[in-house]
Amino acid sequence: MSTEPARTLETFENPNPERDYTIRMEIPEFTCLCPKTGQPDFATLHLEYTPDQRCVELKSLKLYVWSFRDEGAFHEAITNRILNDLVAATQPRFMKLTAHFHVRGGIWTTVEVEHHGR
Amino acid sequence: MSTEPARTLETFENPNPERDYTIRMEIPEFTCLCPKTGQPDFATLHLEYTPDQRCVELKSLKLYVWSFRDEGAFHEAITNRILNDLVAATQPRFMKLTAHFHVRGGIWTTVEVEHHGR
Amino acid sequence: MSTEPARTLETFENPNPERDYTIRMEIPEFTCLCPKTGQPDFATLHLEYTPDQRCVELKSLKLYVWSFRDEGAFHEAITNRILNDLVAATQPRFMKLTAHFHVRGGIWTTVEVEHHGR
Amino acid sequence: MSTEPARTLETFENPNPERDYTIRMEIPEFTCLCPKTGQPDFATLHLEYTPDQRCVELKSLKLYVWSFRDEGAFHEAITNRILNDLVAATQPRFMKLTAHFHVRGGIWTTVEVEHHGR
Amino acid sequence: MSTEPARTLETFENPNPERDYTIRMEIPEFTCLCPKTGQPDFATLHLEYTPDQRCVELKSLKLYVWSFRDEGAFHEAITNRILNDLVAATQPRFMKLTAHFHVRGGIWTTVEVEHHGR
Amino acid sequence: MSTEPARTLETFENPNPERDYTIRMEIPEFTCLCPKTGQPDFATLHLEYTPDQRCVELKSLKLYVWSFRDEGAFHEAITNRILNDLVAATQPRFMKLTAHFHVRGGIWTTVEVEHHGR
Amino acid sequence: MSTEPARTLETFENPNPERDYTIRMEIPEFTCLCPKTGQPDFATLHLEYTPDQRCVELKSLKLYVWSFRDEGAFHEAITNRILNDLVAATQPRFMKLTAHFHVRGGIWTTVEVEHHGR
Amino acid sequence: MSTEPARTLETFENPNPERDYTIRMEIPEFTCLCPKTGQPDFATLHLEYTPDQRCVELKSLKLYVWSFRDEGAFHEAITNRILNDLVAATQPRFMKLTAHFHVRGGIWTTVEVEHHGR
Amino acid sequence: MSTEPARTLETFENPNPERDYTIRMEIPEFTCLCPKTGQPDFATLHLEYTPDQRCVELKSLKLYVWSFRDEGAFHEAITNRILNDLVAATQPRFMKLTAHFHVRGGIWTTVEVEHHGR
Amino acid sequence: MSTEPARTLETFENPNPERDYTIRMEIPEFTCLCPKTGQPDFATLHLEYTPDQRCVELKSLKLYVWSFRDEGAFHEAITNRILNDLVAATQPRFMKLTAHFHVRGGIWTTVEVEHHGR
Repeated sequence: MSTEPARTLETFENPNPERDYTIRMEIPEFTCLCPKTGQPDFATLHLEYTPDQRCVELKSLKLYVWSFRDEGAFHEAITNRILNDLVAATQPRFMKLTAHFHVRGGIWTTVEVEHHGR
Repeated sequence: MSTEPARTLETFENPNPERDYTIRMEIPEFTCLCPKTGQPDFATLHLEYTPDQRCVELKSLKLYVWSFRDEGAFHEAITNRILNDLVAATQPRFMKLTAHFHVRGGIWTTVEVEHHGR
Repeated sequence: MSTEPARTLETFENPNPERDYTIRMEIPEFTCLCPKTGQPDFATLHLEYTPDQRCVELKSLKLYVWSFRDEGAFHEAITNRILNDLVAATQPRFMKLTAHFHVRGGIWTTVEVEHHGR
Repeated sequence: MSTEPARTLETFENPNPERDYTIRMEIPEFTCLCPKTGQPDFATLHLEYTPDQRCVELKSLKLYVWSFRDEGAFHEAITNRILNDLVAATQPRFMKLTAHFHVRGGIWTTVEVEHHGR
Repeated sequence: MSTEPARTLETFENPNPERDYTIRMEIPEFTCLCPKTGQPDFATLHLEYTPDQRCVELKSLKLYVWSFRDEGAFHEAITNRILNDLVAATQPRFMKLTAHFHVRGGIWTTVEVEHHGR
Repeated sequence: MSTEPARTLETFENPNPERDYTIRMEIPEFTCLCPKTGQPDFATLHLEYTPDQRCVELKSLKLYVWSFRDEGAFHEAITNRILNDLVAATQPRFMKLTAHFHVRGGIWTTVEVEHHGR
Repeated sequence: MSTEPARTLETFENPNPERDYTIRMEIPEFTCLCPKTGQPDFATLHLEYTPDQRCVELKSLKLYVWSFRDEGAFHEAITNRILNDLVAATQPRFMKLTAHFHVRGGIWTTVEVEHHGR
Repeated sequence: MSTEPARTLETFENPNPERDYTIRMEIPEFTCLCPKTGQPDFATLHLEYTPDQRCVELKSLKLYVWSFRDEGAFHEAITNRILNDLVAATQPRFMKLTAHFHVRGGIWTTVEVEHHGR
Repeated sequence: MSTEPARTLETFENPNPERDYTIRMEIPEFTCLCPKTGQPDFATLHLEYTPDQRCVELKSLKLYVWSFRDEGAFHEAITNRILNDLVAATQPRFMKLTAHFHVRGGIWTTVEVEHHGR
Repeated sequence: MSTEPARTLETFENPNPERDYTIRMEIPEFTCLCPKTGQPDFATLHLEYTPDQRCVELKSLKLYVWSFRDEGAFHEAITNRILNDLVAATQPRFMKLTAHFHVRGGIWTTVEVEHHGR
């Protein structure tokens, strides 16, 4: 398994923190490796969140997603971990991450994880 | 009617039991036999669950689904039974199984079964 | 208008009465006659129900649906009547019937009727 | 602007007034004139209602819809007015009318109006 | 960055203020500039609102949308600002604006903002 | 099996016989009976033709299609026969009939027949 | 039946007559009247042509299409006539007009007419 | 690997042998076994042919397709073999068989085989 | 009307000039101005070509497409001109450009232009 | 840029070399790196070929496709190279490879390459 690359998620100040609103991002280009077989896995990520003081910076998110390219990751664990990283970086009021993995063994798997902030 | 094959559902430890989250699996390759006519029946299964301590292992699920290939099964009974087996193996907080059967006699049948855990 | 054919709806014992679950049936081949003009009408029926002690038998349902082929029927009345027949035969915990009629006079009509059991 | 044609909406007795149920009608052939420019406007109407004692008669509805062909009408006003006419004719328990107007100035407009009866 | 053009949103009197109803507008031709790179951004706007005393005039809305063509704007800020302008002009009972931005860096972004009036 | 009803196909004069052009008709409401089992069969017909001196009259075509409602017919034979009837009535320069039958025994059948006139 | 309104089709000079190229126009808002019943008919027109010296001017085409609103017209005749008018106005190298009429009597009709110029 | 079951394809007399015409059949319920792994494979078959003196009988075709359920078969070989069997049974003027296999190893495979008769 | 910005199309050496092959590019973000009204026009461009010695460089193409943002342009003329620019820059064996313009006056316009090289 | 991994394409004997037939494979999980920026690129590959004496082995093809994961590659060059490798391994009668690359800079690129064998 590859060593884990350094990864940081940059943020910017929420321009309208006085209002609850929703940001959704569709990221079809996630790939990592299966920890058992070393085979590539592919997924489309859907992120939805209500920012508090910070928003996720787009280019930084793209680089963060790329950083998993050489990393081994189980479906359930990796989805929880990405949510945790995004929550840690932005401290959102609400955040949901849905990962639609490509078919393996004739089965399509989706993992959906939510965080409810203050 | 064929004798029932041995079948086991393997599980693995839920990597994030402290959080309620959702796993969905689409399994388009279910086939069994009609108990009345012996004719093959086909279905697409949709599984959705919130794991507690255990998650369903993907390869084991694939083999479990294949194990019905030579077994006679009514639509309503088989859907309930598969849910029961999956609940027994994983003791989930919530589980729903939806089986979309192919058309028979000009009629498409879907059976949807839920389990609500503790 | 034709005389009404004999029709019976056969049922079988619900294999899992201890659990509330849902059965859906899509029946695209319903046809009857317009009572005003004698012209054929066509509809797709969607049935959804939670069985109590009895389930609708598939072949019997197919024959029941065919029995309207030579019968005159208004959209609203026939949808209510089919629901009533299905409720009488199965005494379900919940049942909904939706009839999507083909376009007539440039207008598509859908009638949706529900029964709430005990 | 043309003078307004006589229009009547005929109804028939609800065959099942003892039950709340839903009737939906899709009417893709609505056209009127823009009061500002005299240009034709086009819309698809979706009607949904729970009848009380009276249902809308299909052919009469078709003629009613045609009666707007030479009439000037703003989007918001005409949708409210058609709902009012239909409510006056049938006194429904519930009625919703949705008018999807064709694109004008690069913008698609939809107006959705509801009536809640007794 | 370009200087901000003058922009006004004209309104007309709500023809049915005694009733809560919904107006939806789909506006696929929004374009502005990225404040960082000066590159064009594109979005489809979906507006939904319940008017109180004033409705948005269609042609004025079209011109308002065009006025952003030479203006630099971040996704989150511009969506909040357009909603604020529309709220100021019409004082609606409810208003929601959803902006679906075209893909940038392999990521599709949507921002959805709501205003709840009196 | 029912006796064959009287059926006639009315035609009208081709308004532009000096030009080869194409008329297509989609007829989703064809139904007949299976000669083996007496069960209803359903099909959508697609007709395409280049008229010579005569065109098919729409209402007459509708009645002709309805006339098969009580008649037993094999898929291959009935499609050829309807084409023959339409050719006999209109003597077209070209005509193609495609019948898309509903699923039977898990198999969807389409029959496509052409006539090349003078 | 209404009297035929004056109608003219304006054209502009083909900016690239030295090259054969194709212009396609989709016009979803055609409506005329049925000569038999006086009922409105609706169609979507698809125009495709290779201009020679003149192109069809867009606004003029819109007004031309509107001019049929109060005119009685059979499907086959009106499609041929519109093609003839467009050919007379532009003398194209090639032109095809396809009119997709809304369903009448359960049947969707399409008429497709071509002109081959010099 | 299982032993090969007896299989026969029944035919009936082509009702219109004097005309070249086309019969298409879509068969979504084909399953066999992978000769390497013993795992189930699934495919949708599309058959298209121009009959000469014999047509394929529908029920017999269904049983023939089922007969492969317990047989090991490579994608390329099985598609050629089914075509050969169908050609041997019907001696058609033309026949094409397309087998769309479900995804294996992240790859969807389709095999398309044709026979050109006399 | 704005002055025309400087624009250049960069190219790179075709890596496989010994083989005829096809490159397609879909460019959904084209916008220019209507020369009559000054209003924005929007189009999706589809480019298809067989390179000879040079291929279009992607980033340069993006900038070239953006350069029309403030330029007045008729549908037919601008499509021919973009093709001419691309042909001049790459001298392709074959090139086709299709511009799908957004609806104006209820009419969708597409212009398709081809160049056949040596 | 990474060093190029060893890669081999295994083949098996064509089971029906006496017949020209077609094999199609859809491979949605291709990823490589942009040689300019080092950023990941993604594509769906469509392969179509008529085998002569050898067919591409499925698992070997999967591994071959994965081998580009860490390699820098321009769209046009990589598509030609993959075709060349597949042709070298199987010497097919005909082969076509189409690579649909994900959007970059707002532009979707497809490269389609053919080989015509003896």
